[in-house]
Amino acid sequence: MASKVSPLAPNVIHPLPALPGVRLTARECGVRYKGRKDVMLMEIAPGSTIAGVLTKSLTCSAPVDICRKHLKGGKARAILVNAGNANAFTGKVGIEAVDRCLKATAKSLGCKVSEIFIASTGVIGEPINDKRITDNLPALIKDLQEDAWNDAARAIMTTDTFEKVATRTAKIGDAEVTINGIAKGSGMIAPDMATMLAFVATDAKIPAAILQTLLAKAADKSFNCITVDGDTSTSDTLLLVATGQGPKHKKPASATDPILKEFRAALESLLTDLAVQVVQDGEGAEKLVTIDVSGAASAAAARRIGLAIANSPLVKTAIAGEDANWGRIVMAVGKSGEKADRDKLSISIGGVEITRNGQRRPDYDEAPVAAHIKTRDVHIGVDVGIGSGKARVWTCDLTHRYIEINADYRS
Amino acid sequence: MASKVSPLAPNVIHPLPALPGVRLTARECGVRYKGRKDVMLMEIAPGSTIAGVLTKSLTCSAPVDICRKHLKGGKARAILVNAGNANAFTGKVGIEAVDRCLKATAKSLGCKVSEIFIASTGVIGEPINDKRITDNLPALIKDLQEDAWNDAARAIMTTDTFEKVATRTAKIGDAEVTINGIAKGSGMIAPDMATMLAFVATDAKIPAAILQTLLAKAADKSFNCITVDGDTSTSDTLLLVATGQGPKHKKPASATDPILKEFRAALESLLTDLAVQVVQDGEGAEKLVTIDVSGAASAAAARRIGLAIANSPLVKTAIAGEDANWGRIVMAVGKSGEKADRDKLSISIGGVEITRNGQRRPDYDEAPVAAHIKTRDVHIGVDVGIGSGKARVWTCDLTHRYIEINADYRS
Repeated sequence: MASKVSPLAPNVIHPLPALPGVRLTARECGVRYKGRKDVMLMEIAPGSTIAGVLTKSLTCSAPVDICRKHLKGGKARAILVNAGNANAFTGKVGIEAVDRCLKATAKSLGCKVSEIFIASTGVIGEPINDKRITDNLPALIKDLQEDAWNDAARAIMTTDTFEKVATRTAKIGDAEVTINGIAKGSGMIAPDMATMLAFVATDAKIPAAILQTLLAKAADKSFNCITVDGDTSTSDTLLLVATGQGPKHKKPASATDPILKEFRAALESLLTDLAVQVVQDGEGAEKLVTIDVSGAASAAAARRIGLAIANSPLVKTAIAGEDANWGRIVMAVGKSGEKADRDKLSISIGGVEITRNGQRRPDYDEAPVAAHIKTRDVHIGVDVGIGSGKARVWTCDLTHRYIEINADYRS
Repeated sequence: MASKVSPLAPNVIHPLPALPGVRLTARECGVRYKGRKDVMLMEIAPGSTIAGVLTKSLTCSAPVDICRKHLKGGKARAILVNAGNANAFTGKVGIEAVDRCLKATAKSLGCKVSEIFIASTGVIGEPINDKRITDNLPALIKDLQEDAWNDAARAIMTTDTFEKVATRTAKIGDAEVTINGIAKGSGMIAPDMATMLAFVATDAKIPAAILQTLLAKAADKSFNCITVDGDTSTSDTLLLVATGQGPKHKKPASATDPILKEFRAALESLLTDLAVQVVQDGEGAEKLVTIDVSGAASAAAARRIGLAIANSPLVKTAIAGEDANWGRIVMAVGKSGEKADRDKLSISIGGVEITRNGQRRPDYDEAPVAAHIKTRDVHIGVDVGIGSGKARVWTCDLTHRYIEINADYRS
């Protein structure tokens, strides 16, 4: 399925460092794909905490239901993930398959079922052959390694063309902790809490309730600000594990504890990195589009305006065609349903202000805008002239390749 | 711009009959296009009433602002329309251009400025050269004819590949009245009150307030139930004129007067006909997709679920690829934000029930579904298992041709 690598892929994908308290492995289990690894297991040290944000889809998958339930306990010993089959809309047989996977993993690791998390991505509505997973559990556990992060990131890919990894360090007091993350996603990307699959771990020691607040806040500025095609997945799952196996540090008192300042910034930076990589691997993407909205009634309003632009097929095809058709941006702002002052609306592309006071600037020179839009990295700025709310969102262009990929994905 | 005729176009486009109280003409004025008629004038008999529904876009065009204002008077003597330039986001110069057109037309016809309606469609953000229109007014008025409906319908086309016309008759008491309508639209179609441009006239005699209620209700079941690309136009304008020049009939007391029963049905049928023609001429469309949603919490909820399916690029590309990938329908229902019972969700394609009780039917045979999806007329049925709300919406598939049309529309 994954063919030519996206032209927006990073030039070099660095291997993630080992992270104390986490071991991983990936294996070819033949759940659906042949000739590639398709299952990943992340083993987590006893005593680790976990937080998560999950899709708001009303037709969410069986694994999402289970994660939501297990997150209440706040403790994790393993995350088991397969690609190729989303185990979504599979009814009772889907739930039974999840149960068998959870029980087998818990038994193998000697922990509670409620400490196992599971995620599945791929085709919707097909019963999953979970025996392919459980039969391979002993081998998966035997192969667990500290440095298999990139291998794990590759095993969870579907239409992705490159693995998405990111790492950051941050000081909590004098202790330097690490955060590692992997993600997958390429199509059906319009996160409504998290996008597709992302698994993040830190060796810091943070209580589950605080971890949850930190994660939700950072997800809101990263995964919740991207879109590829406006279609929200049934499987969106973002999990954050804290093993507490890194350098010793003072226990944070709350999510807003000043001791976590660097950690909060590092987490948001890492999630944004992963989220933008998902857009860079957007199905058929040839350009990354960054949209900054300002002057809105609130930050939430700014994000909705940004996403209205980011999801507009007419804006996205204009960018694919390298046509600075900014009238379509006007249209998208107008349809967003959010307050905007048509007669104060200011639009820029590539830093060049095109409109002012509700009309095209008399001195507008299209040449630098036309040159900018031919690059791989397109920037759109919109000020809607109402208030001080702002947001940044990311999307990609809409190309022929998107149609090619999606007109025969399942067959 | 308009090239190959849509494969979904009607085999024969019948000329509309004359309608007492309306004369029309179309002319090549060179507003933007060359070598085709691009301005249409509809002259309406004195004493006629008018109703309209207009885009809710917050970046609506100057002509939309004017129509909204003039509709308060409820009287019409002319509708002036140009294609090629939407006169949207053109600031003060756009408003001045509209003023000049209105004044010149009112002067030529000897009526009030508030009785003139105007609509513009085409590129957004370019100042319009209204002199091209006003200079041609004497010739336009000289050429007014009773049977120029189809000519007028062609003059308002942009990326449309065929003109959209429809006619109906209805009895009000013993009098048989006629309704004629023309429309244009192909891309930027996700009406939020009306879609793009549609001009409808009847020779019945109906007070403006009643006409408005009838129109809003019928638009809600027709134009507000279609989408091509989810992008709402800055120019959506649907106007309905009643000339009162047809056979004499009793004055209706209200919009729900039983005397109007046939008229209400005929109006909804005519608007639906025009709306479906817009989808059939959807940019790049190769298949017309009709989606029936039932079992929703309300009719409005059913429509939103239907539009979530109809706007999903993944559903639309699957249909373009003739792939019965019904899992994407599950996804779209899930993202709609409307109440649905995942475990009662039933999906059918071409009348074949695929899922029941939240999973694929064990006896599901894909063969008849695969055969159905290869036709030009695809039907999707969804029951969300909550209540008794239902709605029908129409869309088209998303093809390579859509990308081709929109990646270089303006250049």
